[in-house]
Amino acid sequence: MTPRRLLSLALPLLALALPQAQAQAASSAEILAQSSASDWRRPDPDNLLLMQLPGGPVLIELAPAFAPRHVANIQKLARERYYDGLAVVRVQDNYVAQWGDPQAEDATLRRPMIEGQPQLPGEFSRPIAGLELSPLPDGDVYAPGVGYYQGFPVASSRKLGRAWLAHCYGMVGAGRGDTADSGSGAELYAVIGHAPRHLDRNVTLVGRVLQGMENLSSLPRGHGPLGFYLPEEANTPIRSLQKVGELPPEQRPKVEVLRTDTATWKAYVEARRTRREDWFLEPTGRIELCNVPAPVRVVAP
Amino acid sequence: MTPRRLLSLALPLLALALPQAQAQAASSAEILAQSSASDWRRPDPDNLLLMQLPGGPVLIELAPAFAPRHVANIQKLARERYYDGLAVVRVQDNYVAQWGDPQAEDATLRRPMIEGQPQLPGEFSRPIAGLELSPLPDGDVYAPGVGYYQGFPVASSRKLGRAWLAHCYGMVGAGRGDTADSGSGAELYAVIGHAPRHLDRNVTLVGRVLQGMENLSSLPRGHGPLGFYLPEEANTPIRSLQKVGELPPEQRPKVEVLRTDTATWKAYVEARRTRREDWFLEPTGRIELCNVPAPVRVVAP
Repeated sequence: MTPRRLLSLALPLLALALPQAQAQAASSAEILAQSSASDWRRPDPDNLLLMQLPGGPVLIELAPAFAPRHVANIQKLARERYYDGLAVVRVQDNYVAQWGDPQAEDATLRRPMIEGQPQLPGEFSRPIAGLELSPLPDGDVYAPGVGYYQGFPVASSRKLGRAWLAHCYGMVGAGRGDTADSGSGAELYAVIGHAPRHLDRNVTLVGRVLQGMENLSSLPRGHGPLGFYLPEEANTPIRSLQKVGELPPEQRPKVEVLRTDTATWKAYVEARRTRREDWFLEPTGRIELCNVPAPVRVVAP
Repeated sequence: MTPRRLLSLALPLLALALPQAQAQAASSAEILAQSSASDWRRPDPDNLLLMQLPGGPVLIELAPAFAPRHVANIQKLARERYYDGLAVVRVQDNYVAQWGDPQAEDATLRRPMIEGQPQLPGEFSRPIAGLELSPLPDGDVYAPGVGYYQGFPVASSRKLGRAWLAHCYGMVGAGRGDTADSGSGAELYAVIGHAPRHLDRNVTLVGRVLQGMENLSSLPRGHGPLGFYLPEEANTPIRSLQKVGELPPEQRPKVEVLRTDTATWKAYVEARRTRREDWFLEPTGRIELCNVPAPVRVVAP
């Protein structure tokens, strides 16, 4: 449905390819429709978190390749049901939605941790060695190199020999205080606006929202400082947050992420770089890291 | 209020400067707090639109320097109360919220226009001559040059001799069909996610949301294709959309925008490039066009 008067752009939709005008090069929707099963990756259920909010579920894929200690800690906290009954504490427009223990600062009232740790050394970047990145060709304002690894947006510097996850929309990080080791994954946030790339390498990113992003991005904004909810506003409880691998099989979301190390991915990036749909009169021929998220699709159970 | 465990970053707040740790260079909040009256610009009320949605108001500044015909047409449509009773028709996550006539495609049911025009030639870019841009120093993936003009984010090419508004968060554009002249400002959209810069020069941008962005960005996402609302979902009517200059003086929002052609603006940009607040352990020293929106403040009536 593309009403004539309205801004009509085809973007990849879950499990649905829109018909495109015929062009010499395939559109991104056509590339996805014509992809093979081996172009898609099914995330490890132990690296998937399912958070249930009153408005709906949020599915997050964790990135142990970048934040192994935080990921392990989050998995422990999820296993002990630490997050259940905690809340979304902050929603700041064009910035983040953040969730955790509203009583975190109160030693008597805060939720105790059993196996989970309340603090971990920051995992702000990692060695570039051993990381097969699929580079993007058009550069970046913030980093010498940008590309993708298993669907995660990555910035890197060969000179420094380091790589780090980038704060694109939907990326999930571990809130911390002023010191590098003051986070742990007990507090988490997701980017809900323009990518705040100045946060890269300052805080541990732990993963990416695969589904249900709207259940975070459409939450009411908080009216306290920095978008924290005032007491009368704090009405978004976390019903549950569990590792998908610990859910009964019939409750596990069945999703796949487009692999980012294939010819299909390269073609997909090219189709997003140069948009050939009829609506585009001036395709830019350039692509920015955060403007080409790896598509996610639902698969039959 | 910066709870220890939480991601605590000071960002410019309307009419409120947060105390910052003392550092050799002032933080962005300090720069704003110490600014003089002449560092701020009061927008022309004839270039301000006030849209009332059920959730609250949205204040938009129009950019006649870039889209004079669309701006004039929108002012006419607002004057004849064309938008009143129309609706938000589409909210697509990480993309746009869009509003206009849900019946636009139906010749018998659509809202007639009196002085407003249903179609205009696209105003996708303009000559760079005569435009005093305040350049940003760190480059851009999409354009040879980037900078600010009267608080609007601008991309430019000296080689082409052209400049154009950029699709940063909160920018407002005129929806169109597949042909360049099929838009008019009767359909408008605002960017609610990561800046879709690939739209630059493809569509007429007309202005920027100054206040009330959350009343667009927190709307429920539509479940039709491209985020269009299904019939049972279309429940966000536009109560009114008027030019602020046509409101009684006591109803006019009193706002100022930081000027982007001053030493204060330069200092502000530098403070955002290199963040000196305690929380930042690794200031990036780089700034991207869409990561330094021109601050807005409320002034006493």
